[in-house]
This record gives sequence, C-alpha cells and structure tokens, in this order.
Amino acid sequence: MGNDNSTGLGTMRANIKRDGQKRVVIVGCGLGGLKLAMSLRHAGLQVVVVDRNNYNQFPPLIYQVASAGLEPSNIAFPIRRLFQGYDNYYYRMADVKSIDSDEKCIATSIGTIHYDYLVLGMGATTNFFGNKNVERNAFPMKTVEDAMALRNHLLHNLEIAETETSAAKRQKYMNVVIVGGGPSGVEIAGALAEMKRFVVPRDYPDLADRMHIYLVNAGDRLLKAMDAKSSAEAEKDLERMGVHVRNGWRVTDYDGSVVTMDNGQTIDSACVVWVSGVRANAIGGIPADVVGHAGRLICDRMNRVKGLKDVFAIGDQSIIEGDPEWKLGHPQLAQVALQQAANVARNIIREEHGETLRPFVYKNLGTMATIGRKAAVAEIGKWKFGGLTAWLLWLVVHLRSILGVKNKFFVLLNWMWNYVNYKQSLRLILRSKK
Amino acid sequence: MGNDNSTGLGTMRANIKRDGQKRVVIVGCGLGGLKLAMSLRHAGLQVVVVDRNNYNQFPPLIYQVASAGLEPSNIAFPIRRLFQGYDNYYYRMADVKSIDSDEKCIATSIGTIHYDYLVLGMGATTNFFGNKNVERNAFPMKTVEDAMALRNHLLHNLEIAETETSAAKRQKYMNVVIVGGGPSGVEIAGALAEMKRFVVPRDYPDLADRMHIYLVNAGDRLLKAMDAKSSAEAEKDLERMGVHVRNGWRVTDYDGSVVTMDNGQTIDSACVVWVSGVRANAIGGIPADVVGHAGRLICDRMNRVKGLKDVFAIGDQSIIEGDPEWKLGHPQLAQVALQQAANVARNIIREEHGETLRPFVYKNLGTMATIGRKAAVAEIGKWKFGGLTAWLLWLVVHLRSILGVKNKFFVLLNWMWNYVNYKQSLRLILRSKK
Repeated sequence: MGNDNSTGLGTMRANIKRDGQKRVVIVGCGLGGLKLAMSLRHAGLQVVVVDRNNYNQFPPLIYQVASAGLEPSNIAFPIRRLFQGYDNYYYRMADVKSIDSDEKCIATSIGTIHYDYLVLGMGATTNFFGNKNVERNAFPMKTVEDAMALRNHLLHNLEIAETETSAAKRQKYMNVVIVGGGPSGVEIAGALAEMKRFVVPRDYPDLADRMHIYLVNAGDRLLKAMDAKSSAEAEKDLERMGVHVRNGWRVTDYDGSVVTMDNGQTIDSACVVWVSGVRANAIGGIPADVVGHAGRLICDRMNRVKGLKDVFAIGDQSIIEGDPEWKLGHPQLAQVALQQAANVARNIIREEHGETLRPFVYKNLGTMATIGRKAAVAEIGKWKFGGLTAWLLWLVVHLRSILGVKNKFFVLLNWMWNYVNYKQSLRLILRSKK
Repeated sequence: MGNDNSTGLGTMRANIKRDGQKRVVIVGCGLGGLKLAMSLRHAGLQVVVVDRNNYNQFPPLIYQVASAGLEPSNIAFPIRRLFQGYDNYYYRMADVKSIDSDEKCIATSIGTIHYDYLVLGMGATTNFFGNKNVERNAFPMKTVEDAMALRNHLLHNLEIAETETSAAKRQKYMNVVIVGGGPSGVEIAGALAEMKRFVVPRDYPDLADRMHIYLVNAGDRLLKAMDAKSSAEAEKDLERMGVHVRNGWRVTDYDGSVVTMDNGQTIDSACVVWVSGVRANAIGGIPADVVGHAGRLICDRMNRVKGLKDVFAIGDQSIIEGDPEWKLGHPQLAQVALQQAANVARNIIREEHGETLRPFVYKNLGTMATIGRKAAVAEIGKWKFGGLTAWLLWLVVHLRSILGVKNKFFVLLNWMWNYVNYKQSLRLILRSKK
C-alpha cells in the first residue's frame, strides 16, 4: 500500500504499511492502552501508540512518589523499551487534538495520523468542578509529575515553617489538607501521617508535633465504594495515626492560604491536595451527544464509541451503555481498563477474521486501599478484611503489576529499606530547570 | 547570650546561642562545606549550614544522571538527614546575597544571619565567558538539576528526529556537540557514546547509526591536567567508541541550531553540552581586590579571605596566595575542597584554643577520568595507567565517596544492572510542573 501521507509518522518505516496490513492507532499508553497494544502482538497488524509522555506510569503508587517513598523512575517505564523486539510497533510522542472519523485520522501536535482502527485510552484527569481558585492553588495527584510537584511543595513548606516567626503563619505551613475521601485521599493521608511521625521529628526537631493533616471528605464516610466496615476500619486507622478526618465537609474555596467549607468552617493551609474527583481527558471531533457523565465517551457493550466507525474507547475515558449490572458505568479502576483492553484486542482480531464481536463482561477481582505500615483494607467478593494480611496482599498485588524486572526489584528494595529504617529517605527538592 | 536577632534563623532554637558559645556559619553544603561541618562535630560550637538546595550532591557522577545511568536521588543526599543526631547543628534553605564583615552577618533570602566564623564553600558555576548566545542555548552540566534538563532535552530530540521529514533537519537533532576537553567532557562523551551504541538502535531502530557525538576541545589535547599518555589513551578510546574528537577547535557562537568555530567550521546541532570552564559563585560585600582569577576569592595560606576578619573560603571558590608549589591556585577538585575543609575546621578549633593556625598543604592523591565500560585513565603519583584496572579503581573510589549506605547500595546495584544489561534504563522525560 505504501506511504499514506500521515505526516505525524515521519518518512520512515512507520509510515509504510505492508501490503493489506491494517493500522491500529492507540491514543494513551496507560494501563489500558499498553495492555491493548501488547495483546495485539501476534495479530499481524501495525500498531502505533501515541502518548504525550514517553513513559507508562503506574497510578496506584503515585501517592508514594508524592510522599517521597518511591522515586518517579520506580513507577514509570519508557514506552519504547516496552515495545523492543515487537515487530511493526511504533511509538510517537504527541498531544492528540481531534478525531476526523470520516477521513479516519487524528490530528496531533506532530501532524496527522491515519488509522484503520482507533482506540482511545486517554484516561482521566483531575476534576476541579469548575472551581478556578482551587485549580490554581491546590495540588492534584494524578500523574508522576503532579506527585513530584506536590513533594517539592510539601518539603519547601517545612523549610519555610522553620524560619517563620509568626506562630499563626507557621501553622499554615504545617497544615496539610487532603480533599477527597476515596482511595487516593486515604492513601496519601496515611503516607503523610507516617512522614509526620517518623521523618519530621528527626529532620525538623523544632517542628515536631506541629504538623497537622486533615482529610476532608464531602461524603458521610471514607471509601464509599467499599463496605461500611472497611470505611470504619480505614477511619479508625487514620485517626490512630493522627489524621483529622472530617466527613460531611465540602470545600467551596481555597485561595492559597485558607480552605473554606460549605459549613462555614475554615482551615489555614499552604498545602491542599485535591483528590476529590476526575473527569475523562477530552479529545476534539466527538459529537456532543456521545460525551457522557464527567466527560466519559458513551460506548456500546463492545467499547465502540457510539456513532463512530472503528473507534473504541476503554478504561476511565469510556462508559458502557446497556450493561445491566453496571447502569452508571464501570468504576474507574485499573482492572476495568485492563479487562476492557483485552476484550477490545480480541474484538479487533475477531473483526479481522469476520467473526462476531463479544460484549465486555466485568469480573470484579476485588478492591483495596492501603493506609500505612501494616494497615490496609481489602474486599474480595464477600471476603472483607484489613490489617497486616490486607497490607501484604496489597504489596504483592501491586508489585506484580509493576512493569519490568528492574522496577519490581527496586521498588521492593525501597519498600524493604523504608520498612527496616522506619523513615522515608528520598527528600530532595528537585526541579528541572529547562 | 540569648537571641541575637538573626532574622534568618527564626524564633526557635537556632537563634539562641548557649552561654559563650560561638556560631560557625557555613555557606554552601557541597563536598567542602559538608566535610567542614562534620569536622566540627565535637568542637562545642553552634553550626549553621546555609544552602539554596536542601541536598548535598556528588559532582563526579552528575554526568551519569545526564546520560540516564543514575537517578538524581542516587547522587544527592538530604542535608537535614546528614545532621540528624548532631547537637546544635542547623540547616537553612536560602540564597546568600552578601557579607557584612563589620557587623559579622550575611544577608540572605530569608533574613540576616550573624556569625562568629564564616566559611564560604559556595563552589563554582558554569562559565560561558560572557557569550550570551551560548549561555541561552547550550546546556551546562554542573548540577543535578542541569543534568535532568540535559537528559530531558537529549531524549526529546530523539523523539523529534523520528518524525522529522527533512534529512538535514533530522541530522541536527541527532548531533550532540560537547564543548570542553576536561574530565567532564570526556566522561559525558563516553557515556553518550554508550547510549548511542546500546540504547538508540533498540529504542529507535530508524535512527540507528544516525547519531553523531562531537567532542570539541579548544586545547591541543584532551585532559590537559593529566599526562600526555593519558590524553592519548582517552582520545583513542573515545574514537574507538565513535566519538568525533576535534582538538584545537574553539567555539565562538551557538544560536540553538548551528555551532560556529573560530576556524570557520560549523556543526548543525540541537544539543550542545557546555563543560568548557567554571567560575566561582559570587557573593556581595567582597572588596574588588579580593576577587581573583575566575571569581575565586584570594585567601592566605590558612584559607582566610584577605582583609576580612573570621571569614574563610574553601574549595572551588578560593585561591590561595603564596603556596610556593601552586602559584596559580590549586586545581578545582573534590580532594582539594575536602582537604581545605579539614584544615579550616582544625584552624577554627585552634583559634578557639588560642593556638597558632597552620597553613594548608595539598596532598595530591591522584586524578582519574572514566571513559566508558571498562575504560578509564588514572594517575597516582608517578603511576599512570588505564583500561579495566583504572575503571575498577574509579568505581571503588567514587562508590566510597557517596554519602549514605542506601545511596551506595543503590548506585552499585544500578551500575551492576546496567553492566549486565548493556543498556541504560532510566529514560523518562520527566518535568516537575509547579
């Protein structure tokens, strides 16, 4: 077939399709996009992966980068390395702007790229619900880069607190407010409570005991996707670790100094972590009626975006209509993205073979959240448990999912080291200048 | 004595000197500053360390961060951790602006800090010799943050090259020009040659063999501080590894696209690494006649800054007048800074005891530079050697010097891993957003 003039592919091999071979373009190399690409390895298709970052990151451990327990490189993996030795696989670093489903191409920051099949796995981003003040002043924690910025900010505030002469101003730099009672909020609250307990008294003897961590949650209990028993256990653990849990408080404003709640309460804080909600990443060229709740693209049960031919959406960016068990959409969890990716890969292969496509059926493998050293909550089917067992299970499950032998090995070593030393050790305020 | 109103110390313990106790303020926590602080541990003095970064970094390995062989955290160590358990030691994160030697205080970004003894160990920074174009467009490699920026830029250029359709433009993104034939230039050239050989062909099959590395050196041979035999060996090794060594070429301009030499030659390049010279970091309040060659402060043989009472300067920032053996000043090497720091610490203690101060006598422990896997050059006294022996020695010496058991351990693991795998693995383009 030869060169198809996809300017975003350059003049080299990626732009030359072998005779009759079709091209699958995958936008976003998160957990879903990567799984899908790997599942097509033996399908005889050309695979082009487009992502604005040159690495795949592992979202469940981002909070550990923020709390300085892990390095960014421990939970991020270069995409090109992942596809080494894969025949006819290509990666392009680009921002994707819009879809032209008539011409079957996408417009990107590096040019157009034509597709035969398009899969959108762009994931979700932080939802500030239109509150510009909060967006400007609070710290999100959705990406490795967010986590690095938050870590730098947290540590810098402690340095400021040490020389602040006004007691009230100093307390502002010592108060951390986490907004959102889901797994991310619980996990970062627990990790920061450990930092407060083990690191701060040693590194900042003058500040010991002055640090306060607030977990502000609009709902009436933490971890509302889990059982009430798990919620209660998480709350008890966090309070024991010194976290102030505030259920039923809704943040209405944050100006960089004061967090304001709808019940009139306020907290002075120079560091607000916003993990209160997500919305799907947006892409142009999608009809308005296909964009559903929180920006998720409405798909049929085969994950095909409604009304767009040969375009699929998976994971956090998609919402499936018509699944009798999940009328409000599937939870935005790693396992959903992975399972949908596997099903879409099989469906693309089926379509190539003229077979009937099969609908996605979600298999809930359980949910868990870690709270701290030897403390976690887990639910697997009807089995609900916490404490050390849940923590060890959490550790094994997440270690298994991290890509690459080297990364697994280094993460394990870091965890073991931190466990033995009872203190976090990666506390550099590090900024790339250019 | 009580509070002395040093506003930069805050209201807490650091600002309260015990009866009769003197305060040593150390500006800069590089190799020299840190060594000095540690050497005063049992002197019964209050020690205040001021640095703009909250970590001590290990300069000899910065090039490995730039070439993605090591992570920043492997060669940087939080200052507060270093002083855990030290009585009456304080760290302050601040930029130091000027000295007022009459009032015996320094002005900093967080306020004034009074001293009884002041030691300047602010080190050196990249010298662009007034060439604004080069300063704007070339990448220095003097700090961990420089190295991260250079790494991001190098990897980004490869991504651009993959989709560039003009062959001439593409080559620009594939040419790396290193300016400076000293140890830093040789080391980064060698590390990038290994990246070109082992990483690029795997990750960018279309770009294999297109990458070119130029080492441009104004002098007539590399490593001019070493023996001619070592220079020849380094050059031979680099050429064998595919580096184009250009001796006797002096860069006059770089506009971001084209490097221009004084002999009329040009090289198209989107990445220029500038390791061609350093100048001492500057501080205000120093009389002009005390500022010597390349900004180094002129000291007597006790490292006391000329004409300023109780002010010392050590390492790269200082130049000793009157040493019969080193008339042009001591080389700006780690071992000089470390030895001067130890001598100044002893002299401060001697002064406290009313004893006579002793002049600094440099003991040259040898010099070395690494070129690549199993290739290095070393000179210890009259003993000059290269190859595997020098490389192993280099490895042991540098591992010994890295601070902290954890860092040593992780650096060793990284090196072993890279050695076994013959490929670098930390190739993330990672930028902190805020």
